[in-house]
Amino acid sequence: MERRSFLGWSAFGTVVGWLQPASLLAHSSPLPGPEAVKRPLADPSREAIYRYIDSNLGAHVERIQEYLRQPSISAENRGIKECAELTREYLAAAGCQEAEIVPTAGHPGVWGYYDAGAKKTLVIYWMYDVQPVNPEDWTTPPFEAQVVPDTRWGANGRIIRARGAINSKGPERAFLNAVESIRAVEGDLPVNLMFICEGEEEISSAHMPDLVARYRDRLATADGVLFPMCSQGPDGRADLDLGNKGIVYVELEARGDARGGPREFEIHSSLKAAVDSPVWRLVQALATLTDATGNQVKIAGITDSIRPPTAKEEELMEALLNEVDEEAMKRQLKVDRWIGGADKREALRKLLFDTTVNIDGIWAGYTGPGSKTILPHKANAKLDFRLVPNQRAADIIPLLCKHLDEHGFADVKINWSNGYDWSQTDPDSLLVRAALDTYSDHEVPTVTWPRIAGSAPFYLFTRELGLPLVMFGLGHGSGAHSVDEYLVIEAQPPIKGLADIEKGYVDFLFRFAA
Amino acid sequence: MERRSFLGWSAFGTVVGWLQPASLLAHSSPLPGPEAVKRPLADPSREAIYRYIDSNLGAHVERIQEYLRQPSISAENRGIKECAELTREYLAAAGCQEAEIVPTAGHPGVWGYYDAGAKKTLVIYWMYDVQPVNPEDWTTPPFEAQVVPDTRWGANGRIIRARGAINSKGPERAFLNAVESIRAVEGDLPVNLMFICEGEEEISSAHMPDLVARYRDRLATADGVLFPMCSQGPDGRADLDLGNKGIVYVELEARGDARGGPREFEIHSSLKAAVDSPVWRLVQALATLTDATGNQVKIAGITDSIRPPTAKEEELMEALLNEVDEEAMKRQLKVDRWIGGADKREALRKLLFDTTVNIDGIWAGYTGPGSKTILPHKANAKLDFRLVPNQRAADIIPLLCKHLDEHGFADVKINWSNGYDWSQTDPDSLLVRAALDTYSDHEVPTVTWPRIAGSAPFYLFTRELGLPLVMFGLGHGSGAHSVDEYLVIEAQPPIKGLADIEKGYVDFLFRFAA
Repeated sequence: MERRSFLGWSAFGTVVGWLQPASLLAHSSPLPGPEAVKRPLADPSREAIYRYIDSNLGAHVERIQEYLRQPSISAENRGIKECAELTREYLAAAGCQEAEIVPTAGHPGVWGYYDAGAKKTLVIYWMYDVQPVNPEDWTTPPFEAQVVPDTRWGANGRIIRARGAINSKGPERAFLNAVESIRAVEGDLPVNLMFICEGEEEISSAHMPDLVARYRDRLATADGVLFPMCSQGPDGRADLDLGNKGIVYVELEARGDARGGPREFEIHSSLKAAVDSPVWRLVQALATLTDATGNQVKIAGITDSIRPPTAKEEELMEALLNEVDEEAMKRQLKVDRWIGGADKREALRKLLFDTTVNIDGIWAGYTGPGSKTILPHKANAKLDFRLVPNQRAADIIPLLCKHLDEHGFADVKINWSNGYDWSQTDPDSLLVRAALDTYSDHEVPTVTWPRIAGSAPFYLFTRELGLPLVMFGLGHGSGAHSVDEYLVIEAQPPIKGLADIEKGYVDFLFRFAA
Repeated sequence: MERRSFLGWSAFGTVVGWLQPASLLAHSSPLPGPEAVKRPLADPSREAIYRYIDSNLGAHVERIQEYLRQPSISAENRGIKECAELTREYLAAAGCQEAEIVPTAGHPGVWGYYDAGAKKTLVIYWMYDVQPVNPEDWTTPPFEAQVVPDTRWGANGRIIRARGAINSKGPERAFLNAVESIRAVEGDLPVNLMFICEGEEEISSAHMPDLVARYRDRLATADGVLFPMCSQGPDGRADLDLGNKGIVYVELEARGDARGGPREFEIHSSLKAAVDSPVWRLVQALATLTDATGNQVKIAGITDSIRPPTAKEEELMEALLNEVDEEAMKRQLKVDRWIGGADKREALRKLLFDTTVNIDGIWAGYTGPGSKTILPHKANAKLDFRLVPNQRAADIIPLLCKHLDEHGFADVKINWSNGYDWSQTDPDSLLVRAALDTYSDHEVPTVTWPRIAGSAPFYLFTRELGLPLVMFGLGHGSGAHSVDEYLVIEAQPPIKGLADIEKGYVDFLFRFAA
């Protein structure tokens, strides 16, 4: 169903969820109460937009509910066509002069363009598909999008509970509410917007490269990319990620062939005395890929292109080091000791800057209870490589094949592989500045990650088009890829409710336009 | 269900079925027609027994059907108690002065003793349990024991189709028919018989050592052990196996612990940069157990106790070499090349005389379609070691633990292990002579294996009690552990029907008594 789920949120969101929630970070300073919130750029028109948002909040919640009530499960092709059309209508209603369905070889994309005649152009990366659901496990039906009380976020706390509430239709529709609010008050936007929307994020973004290629020349004229998100952890802190690692996923197989081993079926294990074992071949081949600890990649040439961290990255890492609560992370991951006994600094350095090869799965023969005496005819393993600048995804499989050949394992085959490059956004870009300043305006503490260890196909924008990219947004939600997914609508500090989420997007657009 | 299925037929019978069927052997001489069958020891009383068998064949078939119609599935505890009691009644009816149920911590055993006042005593190893069935897959119900035509064995060919028909209630009841026929004509038997019957062969023979221990002093006075079997392959040739390898089965596990790795659940694979991987640990540990080919065991001390083949074993191997149809074996196993490119002689030598370590199964993490990006918290592998004289099963786990410790893999644990020693019967023993002479009397071509590569717990008799053991019997059947199990009742040459099977047992007993 998710042939390359690592391409999407399942790889990326999990890292966001596990590595950078505020619950893992030390409380280095007291969090501000509502009275302490400084109004950013207190010009009258912005105040008018804020008032408009406050006055129309009920309708804004309803638009989010409406969007969430339209199922759009890409893996099941459920509601995809309808949700693509609804997205197109939203973009048209928000004032886009261009708002069109874009057929692909898979689920359709949606393109929108809002020409504000502005100096700057912001690309909005948008996913309209969601994960599958097991409705019986949910407290309320996942496509009813009920607004329910939730006292975790204060005495008057309320959430929308729905599939897609946080990942990602909730934040996206909130962003559009903000856009409409600016237009309602100002008549126009401070920036041009290009919306590039896909319906396959949860099933690998297989046609996202095609979508980007189609609008490549226009996208290349933009000044940055926003992926709307509500980035606050449960304690109010927001993470800002400046990059992610690339990935190459590969499935290996050893099986009996002309060189030996049973070709078609398992045979009795006593025959090991006279017959080669594909399982041993796979194990021996894998063992050559790392040192005995399993931590040092031993494939010749694979690290040659890695550049050392920049001074800025080192600086960001040192800052991050003070924010990370090592013991909380260990508790959450149920890990007693970092890799090879590394200390906190070394572990964080590896997480940010090291390439890895991991065994995601391995299987052969009998795996049930007790014993069965067989010599299996085949053995498989799934590996993923994580890549850092300046490694290239395209180099990995050739290097792996060369390694296997040179070590005498030409019989170990690659069933399939895929992957993509790392992404990196300039920390000094105006886009990043706009995001950080907006968080600061709203007194949301932030933690900046020079890079996350997970992967997402943002290289399409950052590397291929040279655009900075941020995932940005006030507010909090959780439950992506799980049950009872939610977005907080009304909250007490430090969590921001929907009105502040939308105001944050307003401020971000003005900051970016400035 | 079958925690140690290798202990039983599933390991042993498969080898019999795969490695030594006549279909794999060259037809070096024409097989005799019925007119060519030489009557063994043409004395009048034996002729009278033969005539008795021929006259009572209908009743004999019915006794076999009766026994097969009593289900006795040890894995499901189905009919076990009833079948134990039926077995006891059979032994009493056959004239045993002692015939008793023997409680064990598992399914009951049955003991019988027939005192003929004879010079020699033969132990009958007997299993009354059978494998489970999927009745929907059978042509006729597996416990109806229908006699049906089967033209594979001639125009008048007939079989009994039933679970247990060949493995092993059919041959056992046929043996008892032979015993009763001798008594009906002669009034007594030429040898004393000790019956030691278990109901757990198919689920590991876990209490067989207890049964043997209980009668140890009496068993030790015997002169040999017979496991009744119908040993002819589909082309009429019978295999005689003089021994089998020992086995140690072990399940290894690597999992996160105080030394590193996630302790309780899988974590996101991007964390490999900062967290040790139990899967890599298992792979690296396994890789130290063999050379890069996976064929040479590298555990220090494990081969020290292996004795070279005796001159007799070498002689038997050379004879066997002429009988084995290498290409037919390769075709049946779907193996293009023997281990490491070995020729026929080398492959056979390894099969007979080499110790091995095999990976029966390995598993960790995600093994479904496509990709999932996880760092699994545990990894497991199942291994079996096959042991040859004079290796000791009790030495293997200590040597393996020492090896893992010395190679820095103390974190790789043994979940459980079990096993037993090899078995070997003196090829010059009178018991073997009696078997070979009886086959010869009936002009059944035989192939003698100095040892088979599979395992069975016959060490209980051969090593612990010093008794020779043979699996012996004319006749043919197949389908053990599978569907449509059968025993051929009426056949044309070269296959022997039930009358000849029983006459073969008669002759064997007289040969052994002589």
